[in-house]
Amino acid sequence: MEMELWYTEKQTPNVGITCKVKETLWRCQTDYQELAVLDTFQFGRILLLDGMVQATAADEFVYHEMIVHVPMCTHPAPKTVVVVGGGDGGTVREICKYPSVEKVILVEIDAQVVEAARKFFPEIACSLDDPRVEICYADGIEYIRSLDSFCDLIIVDSTEPVGPAIGLFDTPFYQSVFKALKEDGILVAQTESPFFNAELIRNVFSRVKSVFPSSYFYLASVPTYPSGLWSFTMGSKKYDPQKPEGTFIPQNTRYYWPGIHKSSLILPRFVQELLE
Amino acid sequence: MEMELWYTEKQTPNVGITCKVKETLWRCQTDYQELAVLDTFQFGRILLLDGMVQATAADEFVYHEMIVHVPMCTHPAPKTVVVVGGGDGGTVREICKYPSVEKVILVEIDAQVVEAARKFFPEIACSLDDPRVEICYADGIEYIRSLDSFCDLIIVDSTEPVGPAIGLFDTPFYQSVFKALKEDGILVAQTESPFFNAELIRNVFSRVKSVFPSSYFYLASVPTYPSGLWSFTMGSKKYDPQKPEGTFIPQNTRYYWPGIHKSSLILPRFVQELLE
Repeated sequence: MEMELWYTEKQTPNVGITCKVKETLWRCQTDYQELAVLDTFQFGRILLLDGMVQATAADEFVYHEMIVHVPMCTHPAPKTVVVVGGGDGGTVREICKYPSVEKVILVEIDAQVVEAARKFFPEIACSLDDPRVEICYADGIEYIRSLDSFCDLIIVDSTEPVGPAIGLFDTPFYQSVFKALKEDGILVAQTESPFFNAELIRNVFSRVKSVFPSSYFYLASVPTYPSGLWSFTMGSKKYDPQKPEGTFIPQNTRYYWPGIHKSSLILPRFVQELLE
Repeated sequence: MEMELWYTEKQTPNVGITCKVKETLWRCQTDYQELAVLDTFQFGRILLLDGMVQATAADEFVYHEMIVHVPMCTHPAPKTVVVVGGGDGGTVREICKYPSVEKVILVEIDAQVVEAARKFFPEIACSLDDPRVEICYADGIEYIRSLDSFCDLIIVDSTEPVGPAIGLFDTPFYQSVFKALKEDGILVAQTESPFFNAELIRNVFSRVKSVFPSSYFYLASVPTYPSGLWSFTMGSKKYDPQKPEGTFIPQNTRYYWPGIHKSSLILPRFVQELLE
């Protein structure tokens, strides 16, 4: 009888996902959180922060393509993009596909996340050395507060709203984002699961709506995230994601294409009601 | 310290979902399978067959609305519908919303599933006593084989393709379905997760395609099903779900509406590639 090692993440106090583990590749306490890299049978390598799945080799493509390409293709030609969080580099990888992009600033609080990504997830971290990319190890809230009419797109690729990330889901941060964006800029943020985090989504959506002239909400299926259905909230000063203005269509995607762009904005009735 | 009872379903040999349980309400061995009803904190009551989640109070609406309303609204006015499996009654409940329906035959092999649904899931089983509904305790494969140009729609609301359900995923069954349908009839079947069951989906889709003049594939998010992303395969003799002909729009839905009907047919790129 072979020993079986299983890792279980309690996604809420009452439900969890459990994965059979080949081996623990890395585990450490950083200045901010517990970081672990496990190799699993179902999803390949997975990156955990404080015991919560951040990315897996098997399904990171969905989250990273969708958090990036929906806002990027909404804008006619984004040049400057700021990513808050996203230390694994997957969001940066997708942004770097655009020839219009001149500058990407990755604002990650925890340098050890970037180190772990470079070492254990080279296929995710592969664009962190792109000459257009600057990595800034700083607190995202303070960093964004320092900017004025600076960028075309701000992507909040954060952890769950606990601990240091909690301010990333609040109105003062969205006001700083608004100020940091150019006059036709776009905000997009990951905003958890409509099945498990209804209250958070309702709050975040109304906060974004109170700060931006237009707000939007879209969905994607990420098996290793709680409930498997993940949401993104967008605040826009000018462009409407339902009428994307980008002329460049990202290549080598496995989830996103223009049809999915539009269908991701069409919401199940219970999600529509959540946002009303 | 309170005792914590958790139920874990291994959805594949390498990944599972685990739920905190209030109590075990029912557990028995039927002639066909092990049946259990658990009351859980996250999803309310859940129905398990051979340890696999069939329906939960929290998310059954997604599956039942989507397996029914997409084909029902594709057809201009379905009158006679046969459901294979579906002993919990959720599929019948959604079919009974249509005034055009004159006859619904539920072909369930296991009478004890229907009994458990009536007792523990009255909100799912609520239309089983509708005068248009006939329950037939029989093997679905044999039953369908006996029909000729009989019905407008056949819905295969089966368990996973193991044990007695395995024949429901094979070509001879789809040929019987074709014969059992009227000249403009539609087949729809639940066909598992594109993330975890790619090979099965590829096979089933090509089998349905080989039997029906047109085949289609659509998706919905069901948190308690493996990967959270569930698929449905449709075979159609005449109507195209992308141009639904139904004039009746089902009310009191929580997932389905005409926008979702269309968007559910727009597939992520990796799913499109799976079907090619």
